[in-house]
Amino acid sequence: MNNLDKVKSIIVNKPLKLDCGKEISNFPLAYETYGKLNEKKDNAILVFHALTGDQFASGKNPITNKEGWWNYAVGPNKAFDTNKFFIICANVLGGCMGSYGPGSIDPNTNKAFGTNFPVITINDMVNAQYNILDFFNIEKLFAVAGGSMGGMQVLQFVSNFPDKTKVALPIACTASHSAQNIAFNELGRQAIMSDSNWNDGLYETNKDNPDKGLAVARMAAHITYLSKKGLQEKFGRKLQERTDLKFGFDADFQIESYLRYQGSVFVDRFDANSYLYITRAMDYFDLTKKFNGNLSKAFEKTKTKFFIISFTSDWLYPTSENKDIVIALNALGADVGFIEIKTDKGHDSFLLDVPDFLNTIKNYLNTTYFKLNEKGI
Amino acid sequence: MNNLDKVKSIIVNKPLKLDCGKEISNFPLAYETYGKLNEKKDNAILVFHALTGDQFASGKNPITNKEGWWNYAVGPNKAFDTNKFFIICANVLGGCMGSYGPGSIDPNTNKAFGTNFPVITINDMVNAQYNILDFFNIEKLFAVAGGSMGGMQVLQFVSNFPDKTKVALPIACTASHSAQNIAFNELGRQAIMSDSNWNDGLYETNKDNPDKGLAVARMAAHITYLSKKGLQEKFGRKLQERTDLKFGFDADFQIESYLRYQGSVFVDRFDANSYLYITRAMDYFDLTKKFNGNLSKAFEKTKTKFFIISFTSDWLYPTSENKDIVIALNALGADVGFIEIKTDKGHDSFLLDVPDFLNTIKNYLNTTYFKLNEKGI
Repeated sequence: MNNLDKVKSIIVNKPLKLDCGKEISNFPLAYETYGKLNEKKDNAILVFHALTGDQFASGKNPITNKEGWWNYAVGPNKAFDTNKFFIICANVLGGCMGSYGPGSIDPNTNKAFGTNFPVITINDMVNAQYNILDFFNIEKLFAVAGGSMGGMQVLQFVSNFPDKTKVALPIACTASHSAQNIAFNELGRQAIMSDSNWNDGLYETNKDNPDKGLAVARMAAHITYLSKKGLQEKFGRKLQERTDLKFGFDADFQIESYLRYQGSVFVDRFDANSYLYITRAMDYFDLTKKFNGNLSKAFEKTKTKFFIISFTSDWLYPTSENKDIVIALNALGADVGFIEIKTDKGHDSFLLDVPDFLNTIKNYLNTTYFKLNEKGI
Repeated sequence: MNNLDKVKSIIVNKPLKLDCGKEISNFPLAYETYGKLNEKKDNAILVFHALTGDQFASGKNPITNKEGWWNYAVGPNKAFDTNKFFIICANVLGGCMGSYGPGSIDPNTNKAFGTNFPVITINDMVNAQYNILDFFNIEKLFAVAGGSMGGMQVLQFVSNFPDKTKVALPIACTASHSAQNIAFNELGRQAIMSDSNWNDGLYETNKDNPDKGLAVARMAAHITYLSKKGLQEKFGRKLQERTDLKFGFDADFQIESYLRYQGSVFVDRFDANSYLYITRAMDYFDLTKKFNGNLSKAFEKTKTKFFIISFTSDWLYPTSENKDIVIALNALGADVGFIEIKTDKGHDSFLLDVPDFLNTIKNYLNTTYFKLNEKGI
């Protein structure tokens, strides 16, 4: 990514022991904020981004000049109302929007780390982002929230820091990456690693990027974000700027053209090695592992209020996997709400204009903030 | 493919006008047979193979030395009982196991056609294979059968030749390729075309094959052949010959290792250009197109008995799409049976040892053959 000197970041001085055993310190974590932190510092919400997201949740991303990835949800009077709340979003460890990752310069070689960067986990990401609270002198967050990999970070955050947030909103996620999830991620990694430009991850960033492989990885992932029915309704067998089939290998169908476009624009904003590292972190995610398969134990020590949201047409992180989290919390008698939103928009729903979803979050956050304040919590 | 001179084939002398407008003639169609054609020549079943299949449905494939792709179904006392029936299977037009395809030699250049081969359709495939009936002097087949793309050929065959088969068995298929189907096929094509070895389809076969791209395409397709639940039960998060995560990009999980293996063995038996051509034919398949969206009209002229089979966990060609065919046939008052087989094995079920499925076919074929004979039909 170019112009990354424009992004805000904190430097984490405190050494961080990673799950792989290595220790890192003095590393940058890029972040962005929306709204204002109030005097009591009780209105902060830490939002975690998904696989290909970044710190620019709202407004315009100054690096890509595109809209923030959660523009539907974050802003004045929106679901995460920036008139009321102070929203913080950081680029994950391993990311490519200013945080420490495989594209960062290795002081030993003066070149990008590439695959010499340590493999990181969701746990590492969350532990790194915890430093944001210190930076803003926030004793306790009002909420943590995120969809997809963002939701995994929500679960990990509450498990690691049981008294650091009042509310947790995991959306369209899972507590343990499934075989099919791993399979699709591995497919994407193989597409990247098969690109002759990848060069064992030691390509020269912005020069010989493995763009073709990364585009194929993105296409694969993109299909999984949409539902079969949604694809059929939006694209069906509609042709792309032609009245009949051309009997060749150009994009005859709109769905082909759409996927090619998704692949081509993605490579302009994302780094192939970051894609490898972040998908690896997702695949390694299994919150039950440390607790011998008992997910309840991951949340034993917390009084955080949970509200879990899934989408009917999400086949990547289906309702059943979201419900497993609800069941684990119910087993603790935890304070947990759950809603399954009806939509044909698939896993992507959490990023889209789905009014039932956005209104649910807005109402939940506003009411809960008011009620907790009333009770002096 | 090497040693293709070993395979049996007919040479189709009659010119064939393709859907793309081009005409081909004097082209080879490789085939294999199992069982014996009886004197009345009323016991022949034409089996159509799927995307990556070939004419070697049963026994040992002499080219790959692997078991035939429908070994569970075709053989003595099996679903397609070779003690009773004469099974014919031909490699599709565009294939790479001896039939005319992009790997065939272009007499103008003395090199493989590559992408100079005409784009073909399911209709073209079926019209080409019709010549097999003449070759064996078969007036009317007892049955046509096939799963996935084989099922599409079944539907097309009956529509094109309404009085040439008594029975039709379309399995796990669709009458019109959906947007999601096209999307996954396009993903595979992009993986192949992104491989620098592909060279616009003009690679030198058996020398510089775009194996990496083809392996990624196969991995993508393979995921779609299995169900989420089946994958979870078979692989879950099991590790591959290790006791803990290795924090690298090798295959940590069994599912990763399995997919890599599927990709690597596939490239030994399949041609990348054939993969492009055959997926294109599938994507172009829409039996309703010629009939203004009315699928019933495709079968208006036939008295063929249909028996349609789908699988509960098949998300690629789900039961709903198979039922659309049943509904279209019911609207004609056609003779049509339908069963949805309960299984977690996904789309792949039609190739696997699924006893309910295999027994259903066996009973249906044996009983129907007996009853039609009794009636003198």
